[in-house]
This record gives sequence, structure tokens and C-alpha cells, in this order.
Amino acid sequence: MKRQAHEVSIPALLEVGDQVLSHFGELLGKAGFSRIVLCFGEGIRPLCEPQIVQSLTEQTQLEILDNRDVLDNSLEVIASTAFTLPARTEAIVGIGGGKGLDIAKYMAFLNGLPFISVPTSVAHDGFASSGCSLYVDGRRTSVPARMPYGILVDLGLVRNSPIQFLYSGLGDILSKIPAVFDWRFEESRGATRVNDFAVMMAKKSVNSIVRMPYTDIREFFFIKEIVDSLTLSGIAMEIAGSSAPASGSEHLISHALDQLVERPQLHGIQVGVASYLMCLVQEHRVERVRKFLGETGFFDFVATLGMKREDFERAIDLAPSIKPSRRTYLHLPEMREKAKQLLHSDETLGRILS
Amino acid sequence: MKRQAHEVSIPALLEVGDQVLSHFGELLGKAGFSRIVLCFGEGIRPLCEPQIVQSLTEQTQLEILDNRDVLDNSLEVIASTAFTLPARTEAIVGIGGGKGLDIAKYMAFLNGLPFISVPTSVAHDGFASSGCSLYVDGRRTSVPARMPYGILVDLGLVRNSPIQFLYSGLGDILSKIPAVFDWRFEESRGATRVNDFAVMMAKKSVNSIVRMPYTDIREFFFIKEIVDSLTLSGIAMEIAGSSAPASGSEHLISHALDQLVERPQLHGIQVGVASYLMCLVQEHRVERVRKFLGETGFFDFVATLGMKREDFERAIDLAPSIKPSRRTYLHLPEMREKAKQLLHSDETLGRILS
Amino acid sequence: MKRQAHEVSIPALLEVGDQVLSHFGELLGKAGFSRIVLCFGEGIRPLCEPQIVQSLTEQTQLEILDNRDVLDNSLEVIASTAFTLPARTEAIVGIGGGKGLDIAKYMAFLNGLPFISVPTSVAHDGFASSGCSLYVDGRRTSVPARMPYGILVDLGLVRNSPIQFLYSGLGDILSKIPAVFDWRFEESRGATRVNDFAVMMAKKSVNSIVRMPYTDIREFFFIKEIVDSLTLSGIAMEIAGSSAPASGSEHLISHALDQLVERPQLHGIQVGVASYLMCLVQEHRVERVRKFLGETGFFDFVATLGMKREDFERAIDLAPSIKPSRRTYLHLPEMREKAKQLLHSDETLGRILS
Amino acid sequence: MKRQAHEVSIPALLEVGDQVLSHFGELLGKAGFSRIVLCFGEGIRPLCEPQIVQSLTEQTQLEILDNRDVLDNSLEVIASTAFTLPARTEAIVGIGGGKGLDIAKYMAFLNGLPFISVPTSVAHDGFASSGCSLYVDGRRTSVPARMPYGILVDLGLVRNSPIQFLYSGLGDILSKIPAVFDWRFEESRGATRVNDFAVMMAKKSVNSIVRMPYTDIREFFFIKEIVDSLTLSGIAMEIAGSSAPASGSEHLISHALDQLVERPQLHGIQVGVASYLMCLVQEHRVERVRKFLGETGFFDFVATLGMKREDFERAIDLAPSIKPSRRTYLHLPEMREKAKQLLHSDETLGRILS
Repeated sequence: MKRQAHEVSIPALLEVGDQVLSHFGELLGKAGFSRIVLCFGEGIRPLCEPQIVQSLTEQTQLEILDNRDVLDNSLEVIASTAFTLPARTEAIVGIGGGKGLDIAKYMAFLNGLPFISVPTSVAHDGFASSGCSLYVDGRRTSVPARMPYGILVDLGLVRNSPIQFLYSGLGDILSKIPAVFDWRFEESRGATRVNDFAVMMAKKSVNSIVRMPYTDIREFFFIKEIVDSLTLSGIAMEIAGSSAPASGSEHLISHALDQLVERPQLHGIQVGVASYLMCLVQEHRVERVRKFLGETGFFDFVATLGMKREDFERAIDLAPSIKPSRRTYLHLPEMREKAKQLLHSDETLGRILS
Repeated sequence: MKRQAHEVSIPALLEVGDQVLSHFGELLGKAGFSRIVLCFGEGIRPLCEPQIVQSLTEQTQLEILDNRDVLDNSLEVIASTAFTLPARTEAIVGIGGGKGLDIAKYMAFLNGLPFISVPTSVAHDGFASSGCSLYVDGRRTSVPARMPYGILVDLGLVRNSPIQFLYSGLGDILSKIPAVFDWRFEESRGATRVNDFAVMMAKKSVNSIVRMPYTDIREFFFIKEIVDSLTLSGIAMEIAGSSAPASGSEHLISHALDQLVERPQLHGIQVGVASYLMCLVQEHRVERVRKFLGETGFFDFVATLGMKREDFERAIDLAPSIKPSRRTYLHLPEMREKAKQLLHSDETLGRILS
Repeated sequence: MKRQAHEVSIPALLEVGDQVLSHFGELLGKAGFSRIVLCFGEGIRPLCEPQIVQSLTEQTQLEILDNRDVLDNSLEVIASTAFTLPARTEAIVGIGGGKGLDIAKYMAFLNGLPFISVPTSVAHDGFASSGCSLYVDGRRTSVPARMPYGILVDLGLVRNSPIQFLYSGLGDILSKIPAVFDWRFEESRGATRVNDFAVMMAKKSVNSIVRMPYTDIREFFFIKEIVDSLTLSGIAMEIAGSSAPASGSEHLISHALDQLVERPQLHGIQVGVASYLMCLVQEHRVERVRKFLGETGFFDFVATLGMKREDFERAIDLAPSIKPSRRTYLHLPEMREKAKQLLHSDETLGRILS
Repeated sequence: MKRQAHEVSIPALLEVGDQVLSHFGELLGKAGFSRIVLCFGEGIRPLCEPQIVQSLTEQTQLEILDNRDVLDNSLEVIASTAFTLPARTEAIVGIGGGKGLDIAKYMAFLNGLPFISVPTSVAHDGFASSGCSLYVDGRRTSVPARMPYGILVDLGLVRNSPIQFLYSGLGDILSKIPAVFDWRFEESRGATRVNDFAVMMAKKSVNSIVRMPYTDIREFFFIKEIVDSLTLSGIAMEIAGSSAPASGSEHLISHALDQLVERPQLHGIQVGVASYLMCLVQEHRVERVRKFLGETGFFDFVATLGMKREDFERAIDLAPSIKPSRRTYLHLPEMREKAKQLLHSDETLGRILS
């Protein structure tokens, strides 16, 4: 058996542009599909169905076999409906934010069908990754699925999504900074082996955006860069075969908040704050991260949300138990202590948390 | 036959660091190799053999079956020596600049063996790509081979390589800007189909470096970024299945210069100048490219080389015939005209060409 | 994107031999595993655990993180227990007949982990295929999963499994004959495209066994040939990307029986009878199939089971609705009629059905 | 990096039938090709060009960009002509016996293009394997290339090829018996690790044919079985990542004969005789092999060729040095002695050698 270069799955179809939804039929037809099922996330149908239907009249070969709203992201419900697809379905298209995409992605995975990801917002890297966040036995759980076969991003839609989604996306991108630092730290302690290729991708994904000039985070090129960065982040995890290059202690804090807080904030919002905190703990690229989150308005936005310092304290304590097999900074008691002190001593955190 | 996400080969082993050569034996041992052949490029052996040998004494499992200097990059010579490897060779390691790596990479390809790429300079993206530049029947020819199985970059070595190699690397990175623009242009004319994923990688590779702050192009993090960018460029070509995302009209000019000029400059030097020219022709990101090539000292360096405006004129005329099947800007007569006029009218070009 | 030869997943590890279970620890250790979870099918633990445990004492690197009995093959139950694996589990090993293997295979699939298949009997090709047969909402459903990473067959175990399992295995192998004929028939009607490679594998799998000399179906070499044939059948489906090369109208009859009959027979027993019937309908290789099933004792065995002609009649009527998108012989009314008449007119069927 | 099942390349296109050449245009068109280059082996053009041309008039999308006779199988000549293909060539089609196919296959390999294999005879498994036999520096050398993308076998052509080609094909199929035995022998001596999957395929390929009933070796189904067996043999080598499952000591004897004898016989003829001899040496399946080669007329045919016992003696002595890193039966002095004695003592060998 010969030693081969590492083979990585990447989406075969990627379209990121201003009017992608209006070319939906044409794009899927060109990609060779003729019979698909659409799954709309909550509240998404009125936003997107008209353009999709319109795009189909010009592309008669593509047939919509079924057309569902997908609302419940519990594994039980997904499993019991996944195998009721029409015969001859060739692909499942998910249109929505995180939750709707996750449901559709998992249905495709269970059926061994290609998944076409059509995000309506870019609040995190889920639209371009192989994983899903579902409820299993009432518990939010990250489960593996498969890389999307295609990703179609209509920048018009994404730009007009509520501002919290954009900030969430930025927060998720920033998390690569502490996540990669954690990963290398775990390697230095003999706990794992870092994949340098995944690290490089993760770093390129964040560096190209934090160094990008822009005047408004809603401007076309900035949004496009967010999409590209989150896509690269998905690939980095695929290369690594784990979420490590994109998810370290800052993600553990966010997962802990999801368990502790009654009404958690958007994933990327929590992750963004936690990323800043972890950079302080790691004493790594603090200035860069503070500058970026400050100038984009992320911190100002967070300051309006009423997130509580106390919740973060409890989340820090809970964090290591979320993934007991990892060895991040937060798995060390002294670093948890340091993190909790920084919640009080850091000026920025003082301003945005209450 | 099910539709699968696109599978892309990436190096299984990537190490970029300060003292990589001193860990050579350990790194290859960990990667599972026990019997290898070393190929040194011209003049490289005294520079690198001692560290490699030293690294082996601590790693006794790894055996060097053979140890060659590879000097002649004609396909004829490579083909006639490639099949004289010792029995049970598991991998071929090439140590050198472009030419030495190309020879070793091609020997590995002909033998169906993994290739480990150890660049001593990063004058272009060849250390991380699947292609080789060889002489076939006395003519410089780009031939396909295979993605390196591993890439080991000793940043200490690379930083101390002559300055022209670093400028050449920068020029090669910059070429993604006009190359991608050409590729999209060809698609708009119906001549090809762009792979958006490859485009994204190519753009990330160049954007993360042109936006990077630095004080000296020889500083550690800047060199590392050059290496990473060139590596991503190799991957972008692999995804595309062609050199298009990294090579457009600016590369055609360089290839033409190779044919026309008695003593061509380094590939990336020629490509860098041609990239600036093509950005002017395409009226695309001129400011960014001029600023970057100016501030890094690239233009000043080029000004010392005595490159001739007249050679560029002839190269522009020859360029489209180098790859007659493409449809870049330079394949249009009016754009060739525009390019030739810019050689005279642009102030920067006026300064650096004679 | 270059056109590549078709890539097919095959098990990386295949061991078929007399004492495989006694080398369990050594085999998994050599394959690079160090932390696994064992799943025993119903009644299997006392049969196999001692040898496995014994094999581990000599191979201390391999750690059994968990050790479960898997009894319930409803998707609901599997899904709710699948994500309770110990951290750092590297592979799931299923030991059992069809049902236990299916549960363990699906748990591995849901976790994205390699699955090691250790069949204790070879009643059908499930131990070597990517599919699973589970209960979804109370209905037996074929769902896709992933090719086993490894297959370990202890021929000693398999030889000593009850005789009905061997006959079931033979029946499942024979089904390739009418299945491939159906598939080609569907292609001739424009309903699908046959993959000639999958056809070839399916045919080799059955031809090598029907032409094999033997004196006792329990003899070592004959059992080994059964295992090999069922393994090839799994690969044929993988190549085809569907079950078509191994499952046609004869499988539809068996699936229909499962729905209609209170206590269905073993899958391969039903399939074997239905295969003979369909060969009669297709007027294809009848002599060969009758001879083989006669000489191996399959028909005599079936004659003791009290299977009812009437159940087959109803199953024939139901068959096309099981997979409405296919176009097998049984999807034509006149062929269903012919099949039902043959139930009465064929001498062999007269003897074995009641 | 997750552990994945082993990925194997198999031809994406396989057509084996009576009139395949007459459907050439249609088959390649359906497979998505529009611009190809044809390479005819020596003497093949008049035999095949008319049907191909005829098939194209009905399939106007497929364009023949170039149309060559390929005669010289020295690597030097192939390398110097390989890179003169027309721009935009999408695939290279080789039409011929072994030599013509090897040249075309290697040209495709050097260009990174898909190769379509159209054998006009089936004298060995080269039409379905990734390897080539070329002259390098005047020495016949086995070099790696790539699995054909497609295999089109016109059984009409193959059936009407001279009888020695069919016997050669049979001899090459039989060689799997001693080759697999050698491979297992090498494993038992710790010299290598056998891939059980490759062994299974190799065995299925030979067993399905030696057990097949036939009345005339030129009959349609027998020829088809030969083609299928040789194709499986190619796949077995691909799975193994080496030629070991299909090539052991019997192939070494044949390679030695090629070096020693002025006018060697066809590869498979030599291999067939050597396979019988090695089965005697290995005391393994002698009866089966003798019966098959006797009944098919292989031995009678060989008896007419004047092959010399003395040449075999010298070849046996030379054999181990052909592949010094292997450890087959013939690498043991006592087995070479035994083989040489058998040349004299065995009745069948006495009859067919002179």
C-alpha cells in the first residue's frame, strides 16, 4: 500500500456573489443536478423561495421534488423524518442560518446524499464545515456529518441579515487566534499532534481579515472576506480531522455558557468575547484582537447585550469538563484563575460585561 | 456512482520553523519513513548535509540509501537515472532551490514514490506544487508531476538565502492578483470555468501578505508568511487542476522572456515586474501592488538589474503563443498594445527598466 | 478539475483465517489502534469475549475503553446512545451476526469513527458493506453508513455457526445472478446506467463459488470462499454507489416477506428462494442455480421450514412498491403474473414451499 | 487526521462487449470527453481506425485532435514526444496490444491526462494495470504509471486475435496461483506484509476461470471471462500498491528469459510455463494447473514453439537477481535446484520443452 499525500474533501461547488440566489437553478443545473429537495430554516421561506422559484422557470431541467420547513434540530426528530425523502432525490439543499443548515446537512448525511449549503447569514463557520450542532437527548451536541458538496452564498442576503449575525461571524473568525494557540500548547504538552497545514489555513483565514482595510463592515468586499474566512476555517477543520484548529478554550467557554445561561447569545458573539479573554490569558496578539473588535464595533455591540461577568466566571469553571480529553489553557487551574481575574481587571471587559 | 465532494491532495507533512533541518531525522522517522534517498541541488550539499547527518545520529531508524547531487534538469537525463534507485527506497528527499527540487520531484514522480520537499530558498511556489519545470528537447517545459508528500522549510536557511530569492518569492506571490483576474476574464468570455475555491485560496494567499505589517522582509514572521502564501498557491493550483489560479498573462511574459533573453532573471523577479504591468493593463489593484512592491524594496532591487524595456516589448508580443489555448488579457491585440504603451508611460516602470 | 479514475473505499484491514479471534489484539495493534470500544451482538459475548481478552494480554498497547451489548436496532435507540462513547475512542468493533454488526456499524458511522467488523456468521453481505438494516419509526429500513475499515473473520467461529446461517449466506450470494440481470434490464429500458465494473465484481463473486468443487459446505475452503464472495459483493455495491449489483427483484420479494409474514426467515434464505424464482422468470441460468442450491442442500433445508407459497404470492404483488423508482422484472405486471404461475408450476418450488 | 478506509483507483469506464469499437464515439461522448488523441500500436490502424471513424460520424461532439502511430517503447523517445500533444487534449486513447498500450499509457501519465485503454488482444494484464513495460537505457524496465481511466474491450477483435495471444492471457492469469503463494511465503519469512484484499481479488480472478466450463477457448463467454480476470488482476495490484499479488517467481523467470533468450516468447506464454513449474516447486495446486493448461490446449501450443529446457535453467539461476529485494521461493538456492531438477523429471515439461 503506497504512501499517498493526504486527501481532503472540499466543496466541489462554491459560489459567492451578489445575486447568487437568482442563479440558483442555473448553478445547480450546471453542477449536474436534476432532482433536489429544499429545506428552509425557520422564517427563511418568504425571504428566499421567490428568487429560487423564479430562477427555476429559466432552468427547466431542475425539479424540486419536495420543499420542507425544518424547525426541530433534535436528532430524534431529524432521524425519524430523514428517511421519508422522495425516491430519486439527488441532493438536499439547506437554506437558512445555522440551525436550518444543520438540520438539512444532517438529513443529507444520514441519506448519503450531497448537501448544498445556502447560508442566509454567516454567524459562524457551520455553512462550510462537516459538523452539526444538534440536540441529542435534550443536550446540545456537536456531531460529525460531511463536508457540503456545494456552498452558495448570496452576499445580498447576507449583507442584509441583522447586524448581530455579522458580529457573530467576526467573533467566530477571531476564535482561530486563541484556538490555534491552545492547540500548539496541547502539542507542547504531548497531548496531541498539530497539523501544520490546518494551522496555516486557520491563520490565513483570520489574518487576511484582521489586516483588511474597510470603511463599513457591511461593505461588499468585507462581507465577502468574512465568507471566505469562515469557509477556510471549515477546510482547516477538515484537514485536521477535528475542530481543534478552529475551536479551543474560547469555544469551551461558549459551550459552557450555552449550558449555564437561560438565554445564550449567538454562538459567535459569545466566542468573540471569549476569544478576547483567552488572548489576554495567553498573552498572545491581544492588541490586534482588541483593535479589530473595537474598530468593527463588535465591543460596542456586545456592550448593549447585558452579558454578565458572573456567567463567564461560572463558564470558565465548567469549560474543561466540556471536553475532558483536551488540554487547553483552561484545563489548567491557574489559567482559569487568571481568566477570572481578567474579567475584573481588564478595562474592555469591564466596559462590555455587566 | 455517488457524487462526492472534490478530493484534493495536500501534503501530509508540513513543517515550517526555525530549526527544521536539525530535526530532519526525527521528523521523517515520525512520519514513518525508514529508507530514503537524498538529492541535493547544485551547491546545496555543503550548506545542508551536516545538519541532516547530525540529525540522523539521534534517529537511528532512518537510513539514507543513497545520496546524490542532482544537476541536470533535462528530462532525458532524469529519465535515464530515475530508475537506478536502490531497492526498497521509500521516499525521495529533494534539498535545494527550484531546480534541484524539480529534479528530485520528477524522479519521485517517475518512481511513484513520495517526495519530500526541502526548499533552501523560496523564490517561487514550486516547492509546494505538483508541477516541474524541466528541459524537454532543449526547451524549458512545464510538466505535471505530483504534490509533495511532505514539505519541510527551515526558515533559518531561507532567511539567509540571497535577497534576490526573497524578492522572487514576493513577485511570484503577487502574480496571483493579475492571474486570478485573467482567469475570471477568460470565464467571462466563455473560454473556461473558474473554480471559486481555488480563486479564494489564491486570493487569501496574496491578501494575507500584502496587508501584513513588517519592518524588514527578512524578519521571521514575514518569511514564514511568504512560505505559507506560496504553499497555499500550490494548493490552489491543485484544487483547480491547472496552474490558472496562480499563472496568467504575467507568467506568459516571464516564459517569453526566458525564451528571448540570453540571461533571464529569476522567475519571480520577472513575474513580479510583469504582474505590476498586467495590473496596470487590467486597471485592477494597481495601488496596492505598487505600494507593496515599492515598500518591500522590490522595485529598488529590480532597478539594479538592468532589465530592458525592449525585451518586455518582445515578450508581450510572444506571450499569447506560449499558451495558445488560453484567453488572457494578453491574447487580445489591443491589450498587448496597451501593455507596450504602459512600458513607456508608467513612471515606476520607467524607473526600474532601462 | 482533472478527470480522475474512480476512487473506491475498500477495507484497509482484511483477515480471514482459522484463528483470527485469538490474534485480535495483535491485529488491531498492528493496524495502529490503541483505544477501542467493543460492541457484542445478542448472545455473542460468551462466545467471543474470552478469546479477545486472552489475545489482549499479549498486546498491552490496545485498551478496551468500553464494552457493550448492543441489542436494539432501532435508529432512535442507536442515536440516543451513540454519542456516549468514551473520549478518545479510536474505533468501534462490532462482534456478532447481522443485527449486532449493523448497530455497531451505525454507531461508528454517526461518530465518524472507523468500524471493525467481526462477523460470527456470514448469513449475508452486511459484514462487508456500507449499508445497515435498522428500524426507523418501527419500519425495517435500509440506511447508508460507511464501509468497514477492517473485516476480521474467524473461520472457526463461522464454520460452527448454525447451518441456517451458511445457507442464508449461499442464498445471498446467489442473488447476484438475478440482481445483475435485473440491473441490465433496467438499463436496457433507459431507467439507469449500469456500472460494468460493479457487474464484473458481482459476477466473479458468484461464479467463483458456484463452480467450486467441494464435498461439504462446512469445509474450510468452501467457507472461506463464501466469506470472500460476500466481501466482493460489498465492494461491488460500493463501486456502484448503490445496492443494485447485489439486490434486484429477489431482494424486493424478501423485503416484502419481511413486511407480510409474522415470522420471516433469515434474509438470505428468503433471498435464495426468491433468486431461484426470479431466474425462472428471467429464464436465465436456471440450471446452474437449481443445481447449486440442490447439491449444497439448500433446497432440502428450505423444505423443512414450512415457507408458504401464498406468502410469496402476496410478496410478489407488494415487491414493486418497495422500491418504486426501480424498473426490475417484477415492476412489470406480466412478469409478476409469470412469477406467481411459476410458484405453482415449477417442480422444485412445489417441493420446498407448502 | 482521521483514519480512512483504503481508497483505490478503479477505471471509471469499463465496457466489455461484442461491438464496443462501433460504439467508440458514443461511449467516449457519454463519458464526457470532447477532444482526444488516438495512439495506434504497430499494425493496428487498418484493423481499428475504420470502425472508430465510423462511430464518430454519429457522435459529432467528439473531436480527434491527433492521430498517431506509436511504435517505439523506449522511455527516451516517449519522453521526447509526449509533450507535443495538441493544446486542450482531454484524454489519450491507446489502441493496440501490449506495446502500443504501454506507450500511450505512459504518454498519458507524463501529461497527467486520463488514459483510455482499448486492447486488441489480451495477452497479459497490462491493459488494466497501472504499470508499463518500457525500454530504459536499452533495458526492459517495469515503470509505474497510472490506472486507466477507461477500458474498452471489443470482444470481437480480441476473439479474432491470433491464438498465441489468448494462450498468453491464460498463462498470465494462471500466474496468480504461484505469485500469491510466493507472496504469502515472503510474509511468513517476515519479508513483507500481504494485503488480504489483494490476495482475495487475485484468487477470485484465477479461480473463476479455472473452474469455468467451456467448449472452445474462443467462445464468447470464455473470452469475456479472460478479460474480466485480467482486469481484476490489475485491480489486485492497485490495491496492493505493488505487483506482488500478480507477479512472483514465475514472472522473474519470464523476465530472466527476456534477458537471456534472443527471441523471447510472448510474456504470458513464458509466464504460463513458469507458473506450472513453480506450482511443482511449491507443491501447490499442481493438478488444477496441469489440468487447465492441458485441457485448454496451452501445453500443446507451447510444444510447437521449441522453447528450450536449457534456457529455463539459466533463467532460474538469474531470476532472484531480477528483484533482489524480494524473497520468493526462487530466492532460496535449494528451490532453484529443485526447479532445475523438475525441468528434467516432470513429464509434462519433458513433453513441451526441448
